[in-house]
Amino acid sequence: MGTQALGRHLLGEYHACDRELLNRPEHVRVALIDAVTRSGATPIHDFVHTFSPHGVTGIVVIAESHFAIHTWPEYGYAAVDLFTCGDTVDPWLAFEQLASAFRAGSHSVVEIRRGILPTRDGQRLPHKPGA
Amino acid sequence: MGTQALGRHLLGEYHACDRELLNRPEHVRVALIDAVTRSGATPIHDFVHTFSPHGVTGIVVIAESHFAIHTWPEYGYAAVDLFTCGDTVDPWLAFEQLASAFRAGSHSVVEIRRGILPTRDGQRLPHKPGA
Repeated sequence: MGTQALGRHLLGEYHACDRELLNRPEHVRVALIDAVTRSGATPIHDFVHTFSPHGVTGIVVIAESHFAIHTWPEYGYAAVDLFTCGDTVDPWLAFEQLASAFRAGSHSVVEIRRGILPTRDGQRLPHKPGA
Repeated sequence: MGTQALGRHLLGEYHACDRELLNRPEHVRVALIDAVTRSGATPIHDFVHTFSPHGVTGIVVIAESHFAIHTWPEYGYAAVDLFTCGDTVDPWLAFEQLASAFRAGSHSVVEIRRGILPTRDGQRLPHKPGA
């Protein structure tokens, strides 16, 4: 008996970003889609919302879970969530892509294993819900 | 000089849930919206996707960040993210609401502070992007 995680979740913190880029919804959308592509994930739905007077939220639902970003241009800060399941997607490539897209001066990240389940030896869990 | 977090993020793990409920997209949507209401958050956009042969993803973008759920009915498991900013929203109420909605037999949760920034004494950071 071992354990295996269904997914992994990167919680990224980007500081000292380009404030103007953080506040451009179209840039946020393109950066997220680029990050999806880079990671090897499959996009299902995306949505971007612009706050007044500043701040953008972007979400992409992917076949392998979701990516999300919330920006605070006034602090040069963005919170990024990259939640993926399966072995074919690499959320770390998305993390690097987004750090570059917003010209983050510094960043930190933690990886959390989600859905840790017992497995019999040698058994592999499915890559995504229902897959 | 102190520090303050822009947001808090609950990463919830629900086990031994009602598998049939985990696989009903309309139940997932209603449960998420109820959780938003219960927490005091303001919904902006919601989206639910059903996987074949089973599994549901639901996302609600809120004015205070986002709620997300990914379900694996075959394991009776759901991963829940409740990311909120501001003092007026209580993500723990949403966590309890969703645990109840899916009849989770057991659960675990961690709270992560997001966007930790230096503050001058007495200074309060805005409650949400742009607020």
